Amino acid sequence: MEQKLISDLVPGDAILSFFIVRKKEVKDKKSTNETFLSFELGDRSGRIKGSLWKEVQEAFKNIHIGDIVKVKGKVITFLDQNHLSIDQIRKATAKDNVAAEQFLPSASKNIPDMYASLKSNLAAIENPMLQKLIALFLADKDWTERFCKAPGGKLWHHCYLGGLLEHTLSVIVIAKFFIQHYQNLVNGDLILASAFLHDIGKIEEFNTHGFVDYSTPGRLLGHITLGTNMVMEKISQLPEFPEPLKQQLIHCILSHHGDKERGSPVEPMTIEALILNAADDLDSTVAAFQRIMSKEKEPGKAWSNYVNLIDRFIYFGEEDS
Amino acid sequence: MEQKLISDLVPGDAILSFFIVRKKEVKDKKSTNETFLSFELGDRSGRIKGSLWKEVQEAFKNIHIGDIVKVKGKVITFLDQNHLSIDQIRKATAKDNVAAEQFLPSASKNIPDMYASLKSNLAAIENPMLQKLIALFLADKDWTERFCKAPGGKLWHHCYLGGLLEHTLSVIVIAKFFIQHYQNLVNGDLILASAFLHDIGKIEEFNTHGFVDYSTPGRLLGHITLGTNMVMEKISQLPEFPEPLKQQLIHCILSHHGDKERGSPVEPMTIEALILNAADDLDSTVAAFQRIMSKEKEPGKAWSNYVNLIDRFIYFGEEDS
Amino acid sequence: MEQKLISDLVPGDAILSFFIVRKKEVKDKKSTNETFLSFELGDRSGRIKGSLWKEVQEAFKNIHIGDIVKVKGKVITFLDQNHLSIDQIRKATAKDNVAAEQFLPSASKNIPDMYASLKSNLAAIENPMLQKLIALFLADKDWTERFCKAPGGKLWHHCYLGGLLEHTLSVIVIAKFFIQHYQNLVNGDLILASAFLHDIGKIEEFNTHGFVDYSTPGRLLGHITLGTNMVMEKISQLPEFPEPLKQQLIHCILSHHGDKERGSPVEPMTIEALILNAADDLDSTVAAFQRIMSKEKEPGKAWSNYVNLIDRFIYFGEEDS
Amino acid sequence: MEQKLISDLVPGDAILSFFIVRKKEVKDKKSTNETFLSFELGDRSGRIKGSLWKEVQEAFKNIHIGDIVKVKGKVITFLDQNHLSIDQIRKATAKDNVAAEQFLPSASKNIPDMYASLKSNLAAIENPMLQKLIALFLADKDWTERFCKAPGGKLWHHCYLGGLLEHTLSVIVIAKFFIQHYQNLVNGDLILASAFLHDIGKIEEFNTHGFVDYSTPGRLLGHITLGTNMVMEKISQLPEFPEPLKQQLIHCILSHHGDKERGSPVEPMTIEALILNAADDLDSTVAAFQRIMSKEKEPGKAWSNYVNLIDRFIYFGEEDS
Amino acid sequence: MEQKLISDLVPGDAILSFFIVRKKEVKDKKSTNETFLSFELGDRSGRIKGSLWKEVQEAFKNIHIGDIVKVKGKVITFLDQNHLSIDQIRKATAKDNVAAEQFLPSASKNIPDMYASLKSNLAAIENPMLQKLIALFLADKDWTERFCKAPGGKLWHHCYLGGLLEHTLSVIVIAKFFIQHYQNLVNGDLILASAFLHDIGKIEEFNTHGFVDYSTPGRLLGHITLGTNMVMEKISQLPEFPEPLKQQLIHCILSHHGDKERGSPVEPMTIEALILNAADDLDSTVAAFQRIMSKEKEPGKAWSNYVNLIDRFIYFGEEDS
Amino acid sequence: MEQKLISDLVPGDAILSFFIVRKKEVKDKKSTNETFLSFELGDRSGRIKGSLWKEVQEAFKNIHIGDIVKVKGKVITFLDQNHLSIDQIRKATAKDNVAAEQFLPSASKNIPDMYASLKSNLAAIENPMLQKLIALFLADKDWTERFCKAPGGKLWHHCYLGGLLEHTLSVIVIAKFFIQHYQNLVNGDLILASAFLHDIGKIEEFNTHGFVDYSTPGRLLGHITLGTNMVMEKISQLPEFPEPLKQQLIHCILSHHGDKERGSPVEPMTIEALILNAADDLDSTVAAFQRIMSKEKEPGKAWSNYVNLIDRFIYFGEEDS
Repeated sequence: MEQKLISDLVPGDAILSFFIVRKKEVKDKKSTNETFLSFELGDRSGRIKGSLWKEVQEAFKNIHIGDIVKVKGKVITFLDQNHLSIDQIRKATAKDNVAAEQFLPSASKNIPDMYASLKSNLAAIENPMLQKLIALFLADKDWTERFCKAPGGKLWHHCYLGGLLEHTLSVIVIAKFFIQHYQNLVNGDLILASAFLHDIGKIEEFNTHGFVDYSTPGRLLGHITLGTNMVMEKISQLPEFPEPLKQQLIHCILSHHGDKERGSPVEPMTIEALILNAADDLDSTVAAFQRIMSKEKEPGKAWSNYVNLIDRFIYFGEEDS
Repeated sequence: MEQKLISDLVPGDAILSFFIVRKKEVKDKKSTNETFLSFELGDRSGRIKGSLWKEVQEAFKNIHIGDIVKVKGKVITFLDQNHLSIDQIRKATAKDNVAAEQFLPSASKNIPDMYASLKSNLAAIENPMLQKLIALFLADKDWTERFCKAPGGKLWHHCYLGGLLEHTLSVIVIAKFFIQHYQNLVNGDLILASAFLHDIGKIEEFNTHGFVDYSTPGRLLGHITLGTNMVMEKISQLPEFPEPLKQQLIHCILSHHGDKERGSPVEPMTIEALILNAADDLDSTVAAFQRIMSKEKEPGKAWSNYVNLIDRFIYFGEEDS
Repeated sequence: MEQKLISDLVPGDAILSFFIVRKKEVKDKKSTNETFLSFELGDRSGRIKGSLWKEVQEAFKNIHIGDIVKVKGKVITFLDQNHLSIDQIRKATAKDNVAAEQFLPSASKNIPDMYASLKSNLAAIENPMLQKLIALFLADKDWTERFCKAPGGKLWHHCYLGGLLEHTLSVIVIAKFFIQHYQNLVNGDLILASAFLHDIGKIEEFNTHGFVDYSTPGRLLGHITLGTNMVMEKISQLPEFPEPLKQQLIHCILSHHGDKERGSPVEPMTIEALILNAADDLDSTVAAFQRIMSKEKEPGKAWSNYVNLIDRFIYFGEEDS
Repeated sequence: MEQKLISDLVPGDAILSFFIVRKKEVKDKKSTNETFLSFELGDRSGRIKGSLWKEVQEAFKNIHIGDIVKVKGKVITFLDQNHLSIDQIRKATAKDNVAAEQFLPSASKNIPDMYASLKSNLAAIENPMLQKLIALFLADKDWTERFCKAPGGKLWHHCYLGGLLEHTLSVIVIAKFFIQHYQNLVNGDLILASAFLHDIGKIEEFNTHGFVDYSTPGRLLGHITLGTNMVMEKISQLPEFPEPLKQQLIHCILSHHGDKERGSPVEPMTIEALILNAADDLDSTVAAFQRIMSKEKEPGKAWSNYVNLIDRFIYFGEEDS
Repeated sequence: MEQKLISDLVPGDAILSFFIVRKKEVKDKKSTNETFLSFELGDRSGRIKGSLWKEVQEAFKNIHIGDIVKVKGKVITFLDQNHLSIDQIRKATAKDNVAAEQFLPSASKNIPDMYASLKSNLAAIENPMLQKLIALFLADKDWTERFCKAPGGKLWHHCYLGGLLEHTLSVIVIAKFFIQHYQNLVNGDLILASAFLHDIGKIEEFNTHGFVDYSTPGRLLGHITLGTNMVMEKISQLPEFPEPLKQQLIHCILSHHGDKERGSPVEPMTIEALILNAADDLDSTVAAFQRIMSKEKEPGKAWSNYVNLIDRFIYFGEEDS
Repeated sequence: MEQKLISDLVPGDAILSFFIVRKKEVKDKKSTNETFLSFELGDRSGRIKGSLWKEVQEAFKNIHIGDIVKVKGKVITFLDQNHLSIDQIRKATAKDNVAAEQFLPSASKNIPDMYASLKSNLAAIENPMLQKLIALFLADKDWTERFCKAPGGKLWHHCYLGGLLEHTLSVIVIAKFFIQHYQNLVNGDLILASAFLHDIGKIEEFNTHGFVDYSTPGRLLGHITLGTNMVMEKISQLPEFPEPLKQQLIHCILSHHGDKERGSPVEPMTIEALILNAADDLDSTVAAFQRIMSKEKEPGKAWSNYVNLIDRFIYFGEEDS
């Protein structure tokens, strides 16, 4: 019995695998010996539902949401969907040598490649102080490791390991285009540096122990302030960093959500800040549309379900258009 | 005495020139024989103030805002600024052979060049029906002439002859970048076609007789509806144009302001519409920032005056940053 | 066994009838042979729940929401409500000769009567161009047939076949009152014509195959634009139609939702547009209140459930007031 | 020399008349003996500007905005407009026997006629308790006198003596139409009574000493609360008045502005309240449009100036539409 | 078998007790003889779930939400929670001599103590007219009894018997502090009197028969208007009460929600009204936070669930901070 | 000739004094030799207007807004107001030994007294880490000097030297009351520390060279971020400062404006943050009301002019209330 990914399971498979527990629910029953536990289990490839009929009380007490569990069972078909009939389930232990992180979804793009591309894009910055600032970040091994792994969000966009890097790289590429498009109007180095740094607060905004959730500093301070603080701390190591440049860089980070209602304490007052806001906003929304499409689109379905966050449906298009 | 542009006048010049009347005001005086008329006169290069002390009542009755006038006078200096001391002023007549349009500001870029660039960009469209639709527009001599001359706005951005073309071309170039950037996600032809057509309603939204102002259909219907109607009319000449494509194209035009509060009757529900909205929004705002900077920026002034429309100041930057 | 309407069923009835499938749900069970399917079935008179215990997997695969089904079963009482115990269920076929439309709720008022009344009200229009425009619509057999059948909404008001006609007629009657009430202030013909045309885009905004839902053009363009396009198309057949009249008519249609937040791209700028907006708004809201009352009001219940769309409860009144 | 209305003055008239002082301003001058006072004077027919060149300091000290003044002077023409050259000006005294009220604009319709029409419309109320309540108001001579004279607003609509009566009557007539139009749905007596009472708080909301302004209770409490209090006070004299009826009546008054943002502490929860809100809202806005049109419309001017309160221009129409 | 409070029950207890029915639900079953009724029962100490398997149809018909019931049964453990296995259940009758009020939660503080403290705080008022007004209220035995028992809300804050008194007393104490803090700026008597009276409309806004719910006048008029009416009625018994003082007092009550969106028909225009609004707003929100904390806080849980009403999570703090 | 404060000048005074130039305007004239310059001059006691008729061109070029000038002239009366007839005016030089700061208005309370009171209030903090943090600030001589002098705002509240200290002290005193009032619910040390630190960013938000205006970092970053950065910088000197405490402290500062629309990037999620927000909000608004009252209140004037920032009038009260 081998460890298969959820997306690779077929009915009839006997499994002995590790999963992360995403949901746990007791289902109604008439008499005590008919209670069962319904689980939603996940790995980095997807989710599956499963039922446990034996030793329910014990499992109910010992296993919690967020736990890694080892499951022995069989894949059956239930109303056209794979379902796990669970024989045994137990919490993973240190000896099992599995990490919560293995169960998180990852960027489909290669992280080292993206990181290399990010570095090469940033090499175009000519301003020596911005160069030094960026070098400070990139030289911080612990920081770059966390930066490369961080998700870009919890639910809405780039919500997987490497998502922050993927989004940041995309914003940098967009920014480069606009620097060229509005070349006589803007300070390109400022845009590139702020594109790199705009969302770094997300490194601390999320916990990624098994699944992505907001951390306490993430909720109390938000990624805009967390990121600003990181940048201030690095700049404090560069005493010659010019005050006006610092102010403009921080202004771009602070205002990148575009307006106060979305959590920016100040609104864009420079063309550089406008461009960063536009690049960030479009890239996030396109990624969210893409996520919804890949999850919901199916033959004959031209429309998404209602998307509360943006108060509308999304159109997938007809076959013949 | 030759016709000089306002921006070329120097104190001491004797002039005999045509101008458009932008403002007319009677200044307070104690006795009738001391009344004077203060004018603001304009041509495509700028504005100048002038004063008339003779035959005031007659000039007051005969000359109105928007008139082309022929002025004889002398350029003097008044508190560091050029000022026109007017000897004679009269309305232009047919014999003078001057058109209001001559007095409108124009795009600083060359219109035929921009138009050529627009056409070459649109040539990249592969979808045959969108090709045909665009060909219908470009083959309409009267329409293209009006399109190339139309302003992009009254006060906020691209508010000069050729402004619509300049803005449209810029949005197309931005769109092309995003088509490549999100290449597996989007229908590029749809984005390019809607970028070309998104603001064409502005051809009818403004009057440009001497200076730019809203027309009656511009106010009653708005450029989104006016443009939609133009597109529908052309599509009605292409019976084989697929219904779904038409709907998506019109959707992009309708939703390009991004939300209902800004006059879009529907909000973007496709990635193509999102991209058009982002490109249009950024390009308009950058152009507005640029206009304010070129008007207000001066040595030692780091900030614009308060900009009511966006509820903030704009930062021009310090010399040393 | 005859076909009875749902509202006429009594416990004990054996039925063999056609219904439309509104909902389908698999209910939880312990072992495979105890799964059952719960249906919500509808006809034009109302809804009933039913359960199927046999051949569940097969029914689950073959029958979908929106299907017309033939059902053999028995009416039982379950907790004070009629319930259908289903013996057999199958999809209707061409031979059954039943149309989805038969299962849609209809206006309680007679459609031909309403249509006659609408025509006689419109006959009062004196302006010859508006007369011709309306004549073009009324002469279009296919169009009038669709107009008379279209619903006025999906869920909120007039959400049944003939609802658009009923609402339009009511708005016309209200408009006629205001034309007389503000007689020296308004162009009555313009109000009447725009009252007739204000919601015609709803003909294309909804699909009515079995139950009312938004169509793709309905979501992408909205009924305001769809209706405007219909009117523009007909006016294009009347070359002598005066431009200012066209603009004012379209203005009324565009602005009839009253403000941009509700999807009007322009807001009412004429008294005629104000009146149309007021008439439409009141008639829709009264109809929605009426619908909620007829659905929820019962002895001893003075208040509706919370109505999310308008963020309040509706008061039904006490018996003694 | 006779007292002429401002609207009847012609250049050359020698006048000796009473006016109300609406504005007073000192105009800039170089030396003390050239100071002059510029006045805006009004009567019920309109306004005129005037200048005083003698005894300026004294007039400046003695005469204030809101004073009734006796003016001796001559009508001259100044730049196409009538202007008053003032020889003497003094405050009116008790002996002059003029009342501020004479200088207020009045309804163009006859107040006794409107009041008679109002009473006859209210006579249709059948509910005996509502009849008694209305009778209590109408029997209150002092109250009815103030009701008939009160303005309907300060600046926006019906802002003249009798304006409240005119607006109230119009709302009642509209209400009567809707009672008949939605006859099986509504309590007509409740609508009629609340239409009569909805704005009576305006009697106390405004001061009308010379010109209309908000009173202190008008600002601190607002006419909705002031009117509610009047109704509660009268109902307290009718011990048998049923509680539910009272609640519904007060609900209509409280909610007649339609939503909280406009100062209604509760929003319409009955069809009766919806109708009152629609009738009040439309009648006020139509009257405001009408006022703006009669003030601003002139040949060749198709649009009003920008109307800040509703954030738009108003369209007057072209000659040929 | 004794009557125990829900919070004191332990597994194994045999009970014969009265409860209020908070929820009643039929749970799904396969055949008629397996239906059961699930109840949520409450008393002033909390809630418990229970199940009835016998004579379900009869119980379903006879017992309704809000009923007091007598229950015979046994406390069992079901998945770590107490659960009531019901043998018999019947509605309470007059002979049982139990009142719905007994089942409502009460303030944790002693009502007579709070009332005494309130009176002693109000004794500091020096203005004789305000003294008389307050004396009128306090002398009204029926009114004070209802005032002392009324809840301060349905769900959000102080939602238990005595809650209005507790909140009012707290607002008074806060007000006293601000009177001293801003002592030369404010009319302290006015603040104290309005603090006492600001929420008295809540006496009539809620029904408290078994559990707290909005009354019909509560929904139709709201507590701001209900309270204003109570104050007006008492003031009408004091003919010498000065008009300006009355207006300012009512202004404080009307504006105490701070802005129109929250149901205040006027917004604070005096410092006294500002202070009342601040005291009320803070005390309500702190109480709501406190309620959520006491309900949701548990070891290891640093954050509340999402709180829709204020669109955020609440932070409970870490152990070590 | 001595230097008198503007508020002490009387007509007839000959003066030779220093002022700050607040406004400078060229007034219209007929011929070049009659141009004059109108100045608004200020000192810490108030403002006065003055006119210069000689050497106007030279003065126009040399003297700018914000300059300190030495003026020789005479106080005359012009329409009931003091006015300065200027004989000579020149810019102050280094030798004059006057600082712009002398011309700024100051707190009416004594700064050392307020600072002593602030320190003694902060001494109540028991948490050793918060003690150390505050000690770091108070030990920073340069910082405390700037803190004690900074204004609390530009126009709205506490807009004078020492205003920040006065406001901070008031917020601390209010906070102390609430700590005691909600004593079992809150971390009082956290509230006190955050009350002290909440607005310290204002030290850098304003320039106070002659008059108060926003600085570039003030506009680009805002005082919330500037203050947060100051606190972070000091905390970085205390390695043992606990992370959760830091987060909660920063959370209070970030959220003290109460909602995002007012520039707080996060909203209060703890009771401590709620209290700080309430104290800050009330104290600012009371101070603004107080400022408007002291500026506008005069006998017979019961109402302020319209206050745009809060969209209302402020009531000053009647004499007899």
